[in-house]
Amino acid sequence: MNEAVERRRTRGGGGAARRAERTTMRIETARFIERNIPNMELLNEETLQIIEHNAETVLEEIGVNFVNNPAALDRWREAGAEVTGERVRIPRGLARELCKTAPSKFTQHARNPEKSVEIGGKSLVLAPVYGPPFVREGSSRRYATMTDFEKFVKLGYMSKWLHHSGGTVCEPTDVPVNKRHLDMLLAHMTLSDKPFMGSVTEPARAQDSVDMCKILFGEGFVAENTVMTSLVNINSPLTFDDTMMGALEVYAANMQAAIISPFIVGGAMAPVSVTGTLTQVLAEVLAGVAYSQLVRKGAPVIFGAFVTSIDMNSGAPTFGTPEASQILYGAGQLARRLNLPFRSGGGLCGSKLPDAQAAYETANTLNAALLGGVNFMLHACGWLEGGLVSSFEKFVMDADQLGALHKMAEGVANDENAQAMDALREVGPGGHYLGCAHTQANFKQAFWRTEVLDYKPFETWEEEGARDTQMLASARVDKLLGNYTQPEMDPGVAEALAAYVARRKAEMPDAFV
Amino acid sequence: MNEAVERRRTRGGGGAARRAERTTMRIETARFIERNIPNMELLNEETLQIIEHNAETVLEEIGVNFVNNPAALDRWREAGAEVTGERVRIPRGLARELCKTAPSKFTQHARNPEKSVEIGGKSLVLAPVYGPPFVREGSSRRYATMTDFEKFVKLGYMSKWLHHSGGTVCEPTDVPVNKRHLDMLLAHMTLSDKPFMGSVTEPARAQDSVDMCKILFGEGFVAENTVMTSLVNINSPLTFDDTMMGALEVYAANMQAAIISPFIVGGAMAPVSVTGTLTQVLAEVLAGVAYSQLVRKGAPVIFGAFVTSIDMNSGAPTFGTPEASQILYGAGQLARRLNLPFRSGGGLCGSKLPDAQAAYETANTLNAALLGGVNFMLHACGWLEGGLVSSFEKFVMDADQLGALHKMAEGVANDENAQAMDALREVGPGGHYLGCAHTQANFKQAFWRTEVLDYKPFETWEEEGARDTQMLASARVDKLLGNYTQPEMDPGVAEALAAYVARRKAEMPDAFV
Repeated sequence: MNEAVERRRTRGGGGAARRAERTTMRIETARFIERNIPNMELLNEETLQIIEHNAETVLEEIGVNFVNNPAALDRWREAGAEVTGERVRIPRGLARELCKTAPSKFTQHARNPEKSVEIGGKSLVLAPVYGPPFVREGSSRRYATMTDFEKFVKLGYMSKWLHHSGGTVCEPTDVPVNKRHLDMLLAHMTLSDKPFMGSVTEPARAQDSVDMCKILFGEGFVAENTVMTSLVNINSPLTFDDTMMGALEVYAANMQAAIISPFIVGGAMAPVSVTGTLTQVLAEVLAGVAYSQLVRKGAPVIFGAFVTSIDMNSGAPTFGTPEASQILYGAGQLARRLNLPFRSGGGLCGSKLPDAQAAYETANTLNAALLGGVNFMLHACGWLEGGLVSSFEKFVMDADQLGALHKMAEGVANDENAQAMDALREVGPGGHYLGCAHTQANFKQAFWRTEVLDYKPFETWEEEGARDTQMLASARVDKLLGNYTQPEMDPGVAEALAAYVARRKAEMPDAFV
Repeated sequence: MNEAVERRRTRGGGGAARRAERTTMRIETARFIERNIPNMELLNEETLQIIEHNAETVLEEIGVNFVNNPAALDRWREAGAEVTGERVRIPRGLARELCKTAPSKFTQHARNPEKSVEIGGKSLVLAPVYGPPFVREGSSRRYATMTDFEKFVKLGYMSKWLHHSGGTVCEPTDVPVNKRHLDMLLAHMTLSDKPFMGSVTEPARAQDSVDMCKILFGEGFVAENTVMTSLVNINSPLTFDDTMMGALEVYAANMQAAIISPFIVGGAMAPVSVTGTLTQVLAEVLAGVAYSQLVRKGAPVIFGAFVTSIDMNSGAPTFGTPEASQILYGAGQLARRLNLPFRSGGGLCGSKLPDAQAAYETANTLNAALLGGVNFMLHACGWLEGGLVSSFEKFVMDADQLGALHKMAEGVANDENAQAMDALREVGPGGHYLGCAHTQANFKQAFWRTEVLDYKPFETWEEEGARDTQMLASARVDKLLGNYTQPEMDPGVAEALAAYVARRKAEMPDAFV
């Protein structure tokens, strides 16, 4: 099994019984995944070459728009692109050449050094759902609040198989839109010690993110290390808006990481074919990553791809579909050929409930992401209803499945103990292995174990209320939140962060749109 | 998309409205899958060689038991094995050599020739759940009856993505145990026109299966063609009982196909390690397949592997786990190296309900089976509660996901239409693809479409009762059964089959154990 950061809870308070139960629960975080299995190479060489050729044709003939961003147009002109109005046409090969200065792998530091992650190569870092304005808890679906946000950060901190605290785990709609990034960052920084994401909704908010990190990590440390990975969406097709590019400029200039990610509902924002969509994805990522390197050579970036298909009847985006998996596999191959870290979605689904539909769609995506070589998996847990909803129950259901990904990624050992010839000899035809020496020595680590799913005998399960997965998950949510204790932090740092947030809030009038 | 056998319903009767609705539903069966994607090769060459070496060591040093079967011991002795009591020790290389006469691929004929399937090579044939004594329908869990059995056969016939009618889709516990095979076969033969499986619970019942096929297909046809694929389980570890071997002997002698399948709950019937379990699986399959070729050279057989892990707390078998997937991938590799068709499970799960747990576990298994190169997928739909229960709702939920497997297996086209450069040029930066010429020409075939899952807007979904997947599936079950019409059959054949069943039943007293 993975090395784990294990810390026994020590907080006092509460009744004796509750304390006793609590102390039996250890807060562990698994190390990020290092795959010991091959990637699934779905597309053949010919198809990959066609896509790469066509992407360069798109950049050269059609070009991309950098909107409202004269400085970007200047950078492109200087680099040798043909700029007409806001349209940037990039000569064949130029974008690919510019991408070469982006690192193939980087470390994102957490304030707890044991939880720092490597992004790129054979690694897989798991981060939770990002962006939903609603939350679902049991049968309640409502606008998300800052209280919900904090609960999700705590759940993430308590989830062994989640390496990253994420970013906008839900939109805290009760906080003014121009101030909520401050509260969100403060929550990630103080309620968890895992790595996190910065704000991208305004360049000034990206700067706030950097400035708060300087307080948390120290100014010198932030100048020399990556402490945030933030999500910069491309406005597909082929459009780079000034808000997202402004955030990218702040992060690249500060050597903070950005995921450069086409955001595509196939059939609407890209062609209805897999090959056509991948062509556009590659063109957009080439242009975006190249631009990051024009801002600052060596800035860490990730090849992103958020691509779903569309239900051509209703126009609804669909998730966990075969076309989405094909695009994920193909995008992973294209990213590796560019020598860039790769990001794609994890537990994506369209279902309104954490039911079978949600789980089929989620498992289809999780499996493709693991085998397709994803390095940074956003939305790995908690995503519901096409990203409109963050679900507490689904958060812990998915987080449990992430443990299975860890085990799968370990690959298959072939040492003498794994060969188990002694067990085969000891048991022989017609026997059973339950009591043999090899089983006794290995059974505790042999199999992945769920913390949510039910394996009880039918009668026991029925006596306990015949609970479905959602009900089991609800109990798990309560247990994790009940056992939560805040990670320690230097009181001076905590005060300085709080003061920064208070000062910045006081500088701005509230805005809700 | 796959070629489909399409037949418009023509049956009369019923109200006008119902008739109008019915005539809009066509009964289609997709052609078996021919993969156009690579297999996932999870284990490395070194590990595979270690397993192959160790499996030969198991056969040579430990050996296997052929129980209560002097004829089998004679065959082995004659072939060069060392026989002591019921223990058969097979010299290194002998079993592998004997396996060479088994075909790498064969055709199983259906009575409707358009539904015949090829098993082996790049093909994937999907067959439903096999064996459960219980059924679940909504909130009712009860012993299965012949009425349930017939409903499942009808559902299978109506399921587009299911190629095979299967065998014991549930145990009809209301029919005497020594006669139920006759009713089951009659149901498959008359209520469906897809290929099916024969009985294995007694050699005489295997013979009944062959004899009924002679009526259905004609004696000459059965003598020269494979018309059944039946499930022969090995009594793991390393034991071949006389019941199953008796059935295998009947089928092999008649050139009918058998799946030779270790049945393993890892940790109980095999070592707790993946490599150890695969060693035992390979040893067992080598011995079983070799034995089939001793009975009759060239008899069609399939490398089977039904392997689950165990919850070492409760002793319950677990499904959809990472270890089960690793074993599935590895067994597929070993089967291909033997040049044999490969069978593994499909929609396996441990959940009591068709809920999120069931779907996670099922999707994990379905994905591994597709990418792991399975040629014959048993339990592809309808399996619940570790195989104790056949579920009507889960049958149609899983059968819907099988459509996604078809699409995934097609691979990614790279022709001019797939490249969609005209669309990219037409739309350009900032536009959308919904109305462009390429989308109009392709959208109908572009994306896999569910017949069960919900993609509706939240408000519509809520107005319609906020149904979860199980409720949507229940409606689908009713719709399919309501639209069922029996495939045509020569009345003389139908009469002869009924007469055979009546005669055989009259020859035996009822037995219920």
